[in-house]
Amino acid sequence: MPKPWSRPSSRPAWRPKGHERRREPSDTAILYGWHTVAAALQNPARRFRKLLLTENALRRLTEEGITPPIAPEMVRPDAIDRELTPDAVHNGLLAEADPLPSPGIEDLPDSGIVLVLDQITDPHNVGAILRTAAAFAVTAVVTTARHSPEATGVLAKSASGALELVPIAIVQNLARGLAALKERGFLTIGLDSGATEDLAALELRSPLALVLGAEGKGLRQLTAQTCDRLARLDLPGAIKSLNVSNAAALSLYIAARAIS
Amino acid sequence: MPKPWSRPSSRPAWRPKGHERRREPSDTAILYGWHTVAAALQNPARRFRKLLLTENALRRLTEEGITPPIAPEMVRPDAIDRELTPDAVHNGLLAEADPLPSPGIEDLPDSGIVLVLDQITDPHNVGAILRTAAAFAVTAVVTTARHSPEATGVLAKSASGALELVPIAIVQNLARGLAALKERGFLTIGLDSGATEDLAALELRSPLALVLGAEGKGLRQLTAQTCDRLARLDLPGAIKSLNVSNAAALSLYIAARAIS
Repeated sequence: MPKPWSRPSSRPAWRPKGHERRREPSDTAILYGWHTVAAALQNPARRFRKLLLTENALRRLTEEGITPPIAPEMVRPDAIDRELTPDAVHNGLLAEADPLPSPGIEDLPDSGIVLVLDQITDPHNVGAILRTAAAFAVTAVVTTARHSPEATGVLAKSASGALELVPIAIVQNLARGLAALKERGFLTIGLDSGATEDLAALELRSPLALVLGAEGKGLRQLTAQTCDRLARLDLPGAIKSLNVSNAAALSLYIAARAIS
Repeated sequence: MPKPWSRPSSRPAWRPKGHERRREPSDTAILYGWHTVAAALQNPARRFRKLLLTENALRRLTEEGITPPIAPEMVRPDAIDRELTPDAVHNGLLAEADPLPSPGIEDLPDSGIVLVLDQITDPHNVGAILRTAAAFAVTAVVTTARHSPEATGVLAKSASGALELVPIAIVQNLARGLAALKERGFLTIGLDSGATEDLAALELRSPLALVLGAEGKGLRQLTAQTCDRLARLDLPGAIKSLNVSNAAALSLYIAARAIS
């Protein structure tokens, strides 16, 4: 059977095999905003519980040829406003759905790039990273069960539909997850602004795992020790470290060109 | 007299010439967090009104050899907590200062790269863009007086000290600002995910202005028409547009390599 992650540009067709990890304690994904909900409605793996739409949003879905797999409740915009924080831009769409199943390390394709996130907690950043991961056809994002935001709400909104495109492998222990990737043949590179080697100067190859740490703290010691190599981004200016989603974008650009 | 912006890796030494633009209505910069306040305290152009420090923060400043130019009020962490939103990470430092003066287009150096922001409103994004701009030694960021967040609070925190390193030129009308840059010899490139040309394939040269539009809306029509060229980022995956700060990071990486 072909592995669906080897076709990251198409819709994920992955089906749970009975060993997927469910994240505790929440088991509801709150999805709002045009890109986020439209992408979810087009993902056959999403199971919806509830869909609130304004008339305008339904019209736009119809124009785009998107048929919701669940009967929507037609509401006025302020009914959606009341469900969300005041700064949430929902465009007249709000869905409640099951979280998507999480593949194991053993399910990932043995080619391409995976991104590994070491306790990155800000949901805006993780969402932006997922969006950029989808733009670079990353095959999966690996995160820890603890100290990671859930794939819902602000994260889903910032991901702008990428939740439906990039599988998230949730591991209990990141060092063991990295060891499992290495056993599967992945070259594991930890990004560290204090490293001596420039990522763009390294010999990279597929399959590749790029490991990013939290802002401020960076990679945890055991994470750094487990990586095959550490590398920095070559930055000519006075500031030597970037917002973590910006660092992810540059790392992916450099790596995607190097292994293609 | 040498133009200080030609040395973006050092501290800005720019002094107002009497024609700087002041942004209305706020005239106070609220600065908090280690990187943000430590960088401001080391910027001789900053005028402080008030500085709150915890004992730990003062000790850290002393260890780093940073002497505040204003007598600090020593406080407990919760006194700073009360001044900020609950999610603000202040590390025991909070300052109130004058906003930095804003140079005019005519004051910018005629080499290197400037970033032009067309009504990007999210302060997290603009802060991350400033941080990345400082990392790539951008000589200035150009924004509009309206529909842009002020250089304070969340923006200053996200910029992580970059406010002290990258001058912000505030213009009333962006198309006229771009025209002024073109008169000064800048090549102006608008980033547009729908453009046919790949930024990495264009012939770029210094001085260069990269123009970024708001997420969703993109460049305004007049902005796009005023640019010499439009270009997109070449993204191999299913999602074809990035978070705007991620797009800024990639654009700067590509441009900095092309003109160096």
